[in-house]
Amino acid sequence: MLDKTGTVPIYSQVKEFVREKIEAGVWPPGTLIPSERDFCEQFGISRMTVRQALGELVSEGLVVREKGKGTFVALPRLRQRLTRLSGFSDDMHARGKQPGATLLSIRLVPAKPSAARALGILPHEEIVVIERLRLADGEPLAIETSHLHFAGVEGLIGRDHVASLYQLLRDEFGVHPTRAEQEIEASWATTREEELLRLEHAAPVLRTRRTTYDAHGRPFEYAEAVYRGDRYTFFAELSHV
Amino acid sequence: MLDKTGTVPIYSQVKEFVREKIEAGVWPPGTLIPSERDFCEQFGISRMTVRQALGELVSEGLVVREKGKGTFVALPRLRQRLTRLSGFSDDMHARGKQPGATLLSIRLVPAKPSAARALGILPHEEIVVIERLRLADGEPLAIETSHLHFAGVEGLIGRDHVASLYQLLRDEFGVHPTRAEQEIEASWATTREEELLRLEHAAPVLRTRRTTYDAHGRPFEYAEAVYRGDRYTFFAELSHV
Repeated sequence: MLDKTGTVPIYSQVKEFVREKIEAGVWPPGTLIPSERDFCEQFGISRMTVRQALGELVSEGLVVREKGKGTFVALPRLRQRLTRLSGFSDDMHARGKQPGATLLSIRLVPAKPSAARALGILPHEEIVVIERLRLADGEPLAIETSHLHFAGVEGLIGRDHVASLYQLLRDEFGVHPTRAEQEIEASWATTREEELLRLEHAAPVLRTRRTTYDAHGRPFEYAEAVYRGDRYTFFAELSHV
Repeated sequence: MLDKTGTVPIYSQVKEFVREKIEAGVWPPGTLIPSERDFCEQFGISRMTVRQALGELVSEGLVVREKGKGTFVALPRLRQRLTRLSGFSDDMHARGKQPGATLLSIRLVPAKPSAARALGILPHEEIVVIERLRLADGEPLAIETSHLHFAGVEGLIGRDHVASLYQLLRDEFGVHPTRAEQEIEASWATTREEELLRLEHAAPVLRTRRTTYDAHGRPFEYAEAVYRGDRYTFFAELSHV
């Protein structure tokens, strides 16, 4: 079954074997995959080779090791079109998932310098900062912090729940998210983020910073978000323009 | 200097203080930032608060700790427009950096299943796989693996150096990269990737998968790339379309 002529490294073929089972749906998310010994016996290869293959699949996020239990097929990542300006709630509904939002804090505060710069206001002008934990089907996926500045924004203070922010802004404040500039990076989660997102230590996250403009071209939101690295894939179309 | 009324957490203000120094260029990359004790004395705050602030800045990639030496301002990430279809060499030239490429391997091999699917060919059809370490000003930044399939592709075999692949494809093979679909994720680096990219253990990376189409709409490349998480920021325009 394996090509042992040396053209393609053995551990690489073992990885592809597992990847194919997963992508073909033969091993759905949560499946307990064969043990190291099973792989050794089935393919007639060394334990070290198997360990390298599985280790890389763990690093890449395809499988997860659970101490004392074994190695399981990981939940697939949610695919999100990067260039589409939409809110978390809309994205989840589009995937047949139930969006949730835990309001961590909502405050009227002086804008921190990075937010002031993005919003085009003076440092320390008062803005509303909303911090939310975003969940899908009860599972924490992301933390979003929106720094908001527009006429009447203080009307947001006092709410104890903010589900779809963009819908609320459209319906109650006449603010229409129209265009945005977004940056994406990979980094570690902070300790607080690890706790909120239920991540293990040193787990990688996607970190984004977005400046959102209304229908008049005015920036009204500076948003920072952190997404679980093992649950998100962004995709985009590339061209020469 | 700090607002100790409780409106904004102290550690958060210390983070912003450091971030501003960095973004304003007052503390350029490589600057040794004040010690924990300096921060305690200057702001009249506890060591624990300082430690939390600096710890988060390390997680976010703004500063790096060097054992026995102190905490330094990190190199800024390279900003890369995600939706622009360009090669690594072009991107580096555009930033005034000298691109480099170390050819790790170039082989004529059966396509692995994920590559075959992307290229629209039968599994195990022969393709050319080029794996390169990409450097900027001598610093390793990314590993790119291109799986290539087009008429005459075997003409690539035997080369010992491939700098600008897209230029080579245009000039020598008449293949013009026109459009692509790309996925982006955050994950850990594998051990081999850590070694090649000179990353510490458990460092986060950006992982991309791209299918590239020629001027006739045919897929000719399936590329997997790994970028150092601390050296890259992707940015994109978002809209409703």
